[in-house]
Amino acid sequence: MSELDDLRTAIEELAARVRVLEDELALGQIVARYGPAVDSGSSEAAARLWTDDGVFEVPPYAVWTGHDEIAGMVEGEGHQELIHNGAAHVLTAPRVVVDGDDARGWNYALNIRWDAEQERFWIARVSANSWHWHRGAEGWQIVERVNRNLDGSDEPRAVFRGSAEAP
Amino acid sequence: MSELDDLRTAIEELAARVRVLEDELALGQIVARYGPAVDSGSSEAAARLWTDDGVFEVPPYAVWTGHDEIAGMVEGEGHQELIHNGAAHVLTAPRVVVDGDDARGWNYALNIRWDAEQERFWIARVSANSWHWHRGAEGWQIVERVNRNLDGSDEPRAVFRGSAEAP
Amino acid sequence: MSELDDLRTAIEELAARVRVLEDELALGQIVARYGPAVDSGSSEAAARLWTDDGVFEVPPYAVWTGHDEIAGMVEGEGHQELIHNGAAHVLTAPRVVVDGDDARGWNYALNIRWDAEQERFWIARVSANSWHWHRGAEGWQIVERVNRNLDGSDEPRAVFRGSAEAP
Repeated sequence: MSELDDLRTAIEELAARVRVLEDELALGQIVARYGPAVDSGSSEAAARLWTDDGVFEVPPYAVWTGHDEIAGMVEGEGHQELIHNGAAHVLTAPRVVVDGDDARGWNYALNIRWDAEQERFWIARVSANSWHWHRGAEGWQIVERVNRNLDGSDEPRAVFRGSAEAP
Repeated sequence: MSELDDLRTAIEELAARVRVLEDELALGQIVARYGPAVDSGSSEAAARLWTDDGVFEVPPYAVWTGHDEIAGMVEGEGHQELIHNGAAHVLTAPRVVVDGDDARGWNYALNIRWDAEQERFWIARVSANSWHWHRGAEGWQIVERVNRNLDGSDEPRAVFRGSAEAP
Repeated sequence: MSELDDLRTAIEELAARVRVLEDELALGQIVARYGPAVDSGSSEAAARLWTDDGVFEVPPYAVWTGHDEIAGMVEGEGHQELIHNGAAHVLTAPRVVVDGDDARGWNYALNIRWDAEQERFWIARVSANSWHWHRGAEGWQIVERVNRNLDGSDEPRAVFRGSAEAP
């Protein structure tokens, strides 16, 4: 029986390691889904990446809270004009720290826009992003995403210090 | 014996989860190999990412089908001039959906070019990409990659709606 | 006993596959940590990504060797001016080849800078990067990172041919 117990323990330990890998990949996939959702105007697909009362904070421009506000941002005139002129929300693969059913992450988001006259793109915004995800009944979702333009001010550096100081 | 069977089942279930993770990482690696292959002019390495009759569709410019055409694109005058003037094909980590021996994905590709006089780069193209991969005797390869410039037209949004509507 | 041995072997084989996945994700995480560290001016967090005598080579500009020099680069006047004017070091997810306790990788790094007058960003540098990592007592760290601007010269293409020729 002791040998069986050893095997059982080995399988459980391995399963725990596999779960961490699944979590890390799942969180990267949430980030990879954001751009295609908003750039195709798929407001529901974008909103569902957040928890019911999840927050998307883009200071000093706006704070959107919950599915309706986030979907409303995608459906709104500003965003619709953006994507019909040609726009890309390009996010990089995040650094991720998983802690049970919560996780934090950091990455870059580029807001790139098409200039039809010049036939080239220009970069309107490159932001430092921090993410807080939670695993609930719907799986991993965004609790809070903060997006700060890397314009030389201290706030985006403070966002990224979170990554530097995390384990 | 029943306990042994339980352990065997637990190992098989774990192996299936590990295989999904291996697949997701392998597909991300195909995407990560494309840029370095074409930007170094390594035509065979680029072509081998596709199946024998795989398709690389860049409407309205071109459709390349099969290894010879894809390698020919890399060896061709247009691409050679591009990389000798300074160019980068920067692809983002894809959203991936694996379904057995087939998989689909979506990501961005930036076509960036060096301007030697201004000593800076400019962005010629930011595209919505969809990928269909298949696992065969050679492992995962690209069956079809579609690349649509995000210039405000509906086609690239339709490409990305595939991501929004996928499970 | 033979059946127990079979299960033990199956678990060991699975554990080896899980370890490869852990390695690949860990190496991607090192890359994902670099940008937030340097763009927040977190010199120690950046330096610790390298081994004690690790090398960061950015020809023809500079070669930094070891923690003190790498941290010194981040704390130096040039880098500090860069991030206080607004800058982003945006790295893509790497292609990775793990070989025991050593690994190699290739990716892109974009050096993007804020232009406060034009209220847009411009791209100063897009480089071909090669990485050599080693796993030691501190886990995976960078032994050597080479960064070559994709300005049309042969050297960055040679860097990326390493990716094309790797297994």
